[in-house]
Amino acid sequence: MKNTFGNSVAITLFGESHGNAIGAVLDGMPAGIPVDEDFIARQMSLRKSVGAISTARKEADEVKIVSGVFNGKTTGTPITFIIENQDTRSRDYGELAYKARPGHADFTANVKYGGSQDFRGGGHFSGRITAGIVAAGAVAISALKAHGITIGTHILSCGGVYDREFQDIQADIGFLDGREFAVLDTSAEEKMKEAIMAAKADGDSVGGILETAVFGMPAGVGEPWFDTIESVLSHALFSIPAVKGVEFGAGFKFAEMRGSQANDPFRSIDNKVTTSTNNCGGILGGITNGMPVTFRCAVKPTPSIYKEQQTVDLTNRKNTTLQIQGRHDPAIVHRARVVVDSITALTLLDQLVLRYGNINN
Amino acid sequence: MKNTFGNSVAITLFGESHGNAIGAVLDGMPAGIPVDEDFIARQMSLRKSVGAISTARKEADEVKIVSGVFNGKTTGTPITFIIENQDTRSRDYGELAYKARPGHADFTANVKYGGSQDFRGGGHFSGRITAGIVAAGAVAISALKAHGITIGTHILSCGGVYDREFQDIQADIGFLDGREFAVLDTSAEEKMKEAIMAAKADGDSVGGILETAVFGMPAGVGEPWFDTIESVLSHALFSIPAVKGVEFGAGFKFAEMRGSQANDPFRSIDNKVTTSTNNCGGILGGITNGMPVTFRCAVKPTPSIYKEQQTVDLTNRKNTTLQIQGRHDPAIVHRARVVVDSITALTLLDQLVLRYGNINN
Amino acid sequence: MKNTFGNSVAITLFGESHGNAIGAVLDGMPAGIPVDEDFIARQMSLRKSVGAISTARKEADEVKIVSGVFNGKTTGTPITFIIENQDTRSRDYGELAYKARPGHADFTANVKYGGSQDFRGGGHFSGRITAGIVAAGAVAISALKAHGITIGTHILSCGGVYDREFQDIQADIGFLDGREFAVLDTSAEEKMKEAIMAAKADGDSVGGILETAVFGMPAGVGEPWFDTIESVLSHALFSIPAVKGVEFGAGFKFAEMRGSQANDPFRSIDNKVTTSTNNCGGILGGITNGMPVTFRCAVKPTPSIYKEQQTVDLTNRKNTTLQIQGRHDPAIVHRARVVVDSITALTLLDQLVLRYGNINN
Amino acid sequence: MKNTFGNSVAITLFGESHGNAIGAVLDGMPAGIPVDEDFIARQMSLRKSVGAISTARKEADEVKIVSGVFNGKTTGTPITFIIENQDTRSRDYGELAYKARPGHADFTANVKYGGSQDFRGGGHFSGRITAGIVAAGAVAISALKAHGITIGTHILSCGGVYDREFQDIQADIGFLDGREFAVLDTSAEEKMKEAIMAAKADGDSVGGILETAVFGMPAGVGEPWFDTIESVLSHALFSIPAVKGVEFGAGFKFAEMRGSQANDPFRSIDNKVTTSTNNCGGILGGITNGMPVTFRCAVKPTPSIYKEQQTVDLTNRKNTTLQIQGRHDPAIVHRARVVVDSITALTLLDQLVLRYGNINN
Repeated sequence: MKNTFGNSVAITLFGESHGNAIGAVLDGMPAGIPVDEDFIARQMSLRKSVGAISTARKEADEVKIVSGVFNGKTTGTPITFIIENQDTRSRDYGELAYKARPGHADFTANVKYGGSQDFRGGGHFSGRITAGIVAAGAVAISALKAHGITIGTHILSCGGVYDREFQDIQADIGFLDGREFAVLDTSAEEKMKEAIMAAKADGDSVGGILETAVFGMPAGVGEPWFDTIESVLSHALFSIPAVKGVEFGAGFKFAEMRGSQANDPFRSIDNKVTTSTNNCGGILGGITNGMPVTFRCAVKPTPSIYKEQQTVDLTNRKNTTLQIQGRHDPAIVHRARVVVDSITALTLLDQLVLRYGNINN
Repeated sequence: MKNTFGNSVAITLFGESHGNAIGAVLDGMPAGIPVDEDFIARQMSLRKSVGAISTARKEADEVKIVSGVFNGKTTGTPITFIIENQDTRSRDYGELAYKARPGHADFTANVKYGGSQDFRGGGHFSGRITAGIVAAGAVAISALKAHGITIGTHILSCGGVYDREFQDIQADIGFLDGREFAVLDTSAEEKMKEAIMAAKADGDSVGGILETAVFGMPAGVGEPWFDTIESVLSHALFSIPAVKGVEFGAGFKFAEMRGSQANDPFRSIDNKVTTSTNNCGGILGGITNGMPVTFRCAVKPTPSIYKEQQTVDLTNRKNTTLQIQGRHDPAIVHRARVVVDSITALTLLDQLVLRYGNINN
Repeated sequence: MKNTFGNSVAITLFGESHGNAIGAVLDGMPAGIPVDEDFIARQMSLRKSVGAISTARKEADEVKIVSGVFNGKTTGTPITFIIENQDTRSRDYGELAYKARPGHADFTANVKYGGSQDFRGGGHFSGRITAGIVAAGAVAISALKAHGITIGTHILSCGGVYDREFQDIQADIGFLDGREFAVLDTSAEEKMKEAIMAAKADGDSVGGILETAVFGMPAGVGEPWFDTIESVLSHALFSIPAVKGVEFGAGFKFAEMRGSQANDPFRSIDNKVTTSTNNCGGILGGITNGMPVTFRCAVKPTPSIYKEQQTVDLTNRKNTTLQIQGRHDPAIVHRARVVVDSITALTLLDQLVLRYGNINN
Repeated sequence: MKNTFGNSVAITLFGESHGNAIGAVLDGMPAGIPVDEDFIARQMSLRKSVGAISTARKEADEVKIVSGVFNGKTTGTPITFIIENQDTRSRDYGELAYKARPGHADFTANVKYGGSQDFRGGGHFSGRITAGIVAAGAVAISALKAHGITIGTHILSCGGVYDREFQDIQADIGFLDGREFAVLDTSAEEKMKEAIMAAKADGDSVGGILETAVFGMPAGVGEPWFDTIESVLSHALFSIPAVKGVEFGAGFKFAEMRGSQANDPFRSIDNKVTTSTNNCGGILGGITNGMPVTFRCAVKPTPSIYKEQQTVDLTNRKNTTLQIQGRHDPAIVHRARVVVDSITALTLLDQLVLRYGNINN
């Protein structure tokens, strides 16, 4: 469905980096949920470029809600979020009309849309478009919170520097809530920022890994065969630009385990079925088992670097070189983190509504 | 959509491990494509349990096509594949009606279906259900081959033993075609089998990694934002039981790269735009770039092991132990490989039909 | 989605008139619902050709369930219904490989599938394929009945003879339940059959109107804008071959009404909001209002008549004539009635599950 | 999918009658199609209230496109249309917060959304929301026109006054193009307006029938079983408020025909297969046959009348009466006509893209 994702709760994304506005339509939200514009603004701020480690393009990212909210609550009908583009400098992009940036969607969009795409700043394929996901996701996060479900993502690694892994998931999620630079071991923050600045100094960029945990998901949610929780979450996560790997629970580490290590023993605690380890990341047979849902996303380094690169002139298919101008991020892993939280919330809320219905909607 | 996957070309999967029959309906196939029943049988044989490294349950896995094929060709209407279950020994599963096997869907299916699920042999969540994917996938593989698109998957690792990576992708895919045990470095086969047998001797099981390459995909295919090639492929791949991680191109290795290493330089060769490396795995901005599509799947060890395990008696929620009976695989990575090829073919064919239409359908 | 219909509860239809078997996969059924094979057989018998007013082709229409039912109850996973074709005489159809029957899908299927379609007996476009809808619909009807929702369809007109309209809807639905020839005024039966026989004697056929009522639907069901109850029901009903018109409540009669006549006054009875008339057919703004849902379907005369007809030879695009052989129905309105009941049940059950969820599934 | 409709080309609708703005997102449009803002404005003007026969609420209905158009052409990515609400007088609606207007969605929306819906002016269920369909539909109409496909709708009846039926469909569609009051027999216009004014004088309203023809659709389009052309068009048409009946070709008249009258004889003209009559409305077996697609929609009288009506006070479930204030249309059939054209264009364009693909998208 191209720019729409979800079944019972669905997001439709629109906009281009240098167009009038970007935004999203969020359909199927249960009715009567309080919409906290301050919380939306807080979430938007976590995605904003801040300081020297991010792009110099500064957008206010004010979210205007034009439908679906009445008397401060969701109406159950589509909620439309509009975010105007303000700080655009399209002149920086003249050459990019025909010189594809390596690692970017410039070439593939050119083929797909026959050259009609808005190429300025990556157009519809810019990371800027994720702002609509964050705005819509904020409402989903609120809805989940009201049912005791919380989500937290931290920067497990960035530029080769590692944070500690999740320990006490509920507490760690609380710790991460609202932090601008999301690490669990605060001593990692400075080192990661140094790694980013070092790359920036070289006209280069760094990648990283984001690790996410969801606390409070009830058991029994997921729609196998084809809408397993892993399937729908990975579908959503891989739509975030730069995400190139997704693993759940022990993920690729399972490859070297034996079944006796990998299997999470079931234990009854207070008459509730739990597992004493959580290698499966809270998902068995594609269905939640009541334990925290955990996963990691590999984020590739920002492709917009300032070093001279080899490319092809699409007008004549001749080899040439490219020196990117414009304003770019030397790392996006710290900004992508709230996008991961947001799309996770939208995806899980959809699954919950599929299972439990939406009697007030 | 639960047990249906795909838009223009869609598969619907049905059946239980110990029911009458399992199978699939494949809808939206272009009309007029030759259906080669020998090739279907060949593909089914690659999924079969063979020798000591697989389960002792031996199924003929004869595929009966009851609709959608006329005069040896697809009609354009739904193709239904029926595979009868023959070698079932349901008596082995009595205890599993209430004792959830660690690492399996027993507990989560019990919660989701309120105890009404067919628990025998894992029921609808058995790996056996992938036989329907293989049958339908064989037709999709044939359709792709006719357009010069070939797919190959090898066992990159199994029980800690590693195969070499892809080198000459087109040739390597050709080498893998029809091989019973899919490794590129044939010296790895014996070592992997030894690792499997060693685990089996311990009543245990091993996991592994499957690596896949698709040759010949044209540039410009994919439906971002939400139906990126990574999104739809991962959606499909994570529906295969035991897959817990999916990465494209350099995947998790991107985390420690810099942009200047990660970006694939564009080069014009014979007036065709190519890249001199393929870290992106043939996908930029969620759209194919004409280079081989490459990805890896992490496969967890088979959860059915013979060691005594801790579990919960679901009838009284008390802790207990479980000694699994029945016939099980000490590894499934070698059998899962053709399932990966098959679901990949179905997913990419769907994307191609979305883009190029289906004039004879 | 071609041959799949529904969101949370979905049917996938397959088969050809003269193939091995026809059938359906019903996915998303709530788990734990008793499956009454006698009731399925009863429903199948209502669709069967009976006596001189129907085709001479006699099919046993035995329904074999190969998945999704365990211990007599739905498991929550896909239920597959297989119905073998037995009484096929494909030799009657030789000429139809290239001479399109007027009023049939022969020509349009030929264009759509490029000549690869199974043309025997209309192939996938035969009315016979509705048998799969009836089998799956029987399970949906049972599920609705368990919640007090009943459905009845009667032959409002056939060959120019009219039945009385619905009066006491709940009682009328009860009266229709299981009747072979569904009229409310039993004196209309003989006259309708005479009209059918008169047409048959002329080598001709007759059309009619089916009127349906659903009792017990709760208020608040429907998913506007685009999945209004009228939208989803008409979508389903127009997939039944020969249905060419659908109207809800007063339908086309609204055209000559004034608002003051058309509007149904709201009245509170026993603290429940009702309406004193039901011109809207139980649907306001695309959402059920708690009154009976009522609609009518126009059914065109069976196109297979024995009179000589003008057609085109598709092999050379020259004008020619056609004298249809084979065995055909002089009317199908009486057989289509149970198909309408069945698809209505499937559609409304889907809407109910969307709204109320599926906690045991 | 609630407020999203379409597969390859899809519209998402949002907004409330008295909110900030209404609009639509149109996704999947082929890239490179010229977007003519004057034509969009022209189409919007056909939906506007004009003169004494329409509501006194006057909206500029200026369409602002905020994404998906670049250099005057579609980019292939989502096109977002925003239409601000300006002439709102919400004070007129105070009583409607708890008194449901007969014939309106007030009561059913209240049940569905648990009282959280925006009730002002019908909120999301107002006919005003169709403005988004008209804006998006204008782009679809342009795309179809470029391929020789034209659509025209006329007021077949209004307040008991009848227009003539279609004769020369291509010429008649041309005649209707851009006409403010769409009748083929211009002498009917005055009589219809008199009927509307007579109802208005009584504080009442009138209904009518819209008849539509589509010229130039190629044969072979449609996705049976479940996405027949009748299914997808009726699905779309029944989402227009007030549409309560849809019939294709001879529609309900089929009920009294015999097969020999109903069947359209095939004739070869200039080597092209045509039919000498068009009772089937250009659709056989749910697939276009190359003849004009024809259908009629029954439109119920506007429910907002000024006569006192019986209703229920939803706060205490007691019977009461209601005297509607506000500004309302005594007829909407003349304004609904361009909505029918628009949704028809969107629906057929989707089907064409499904069949022929979207190589530049």
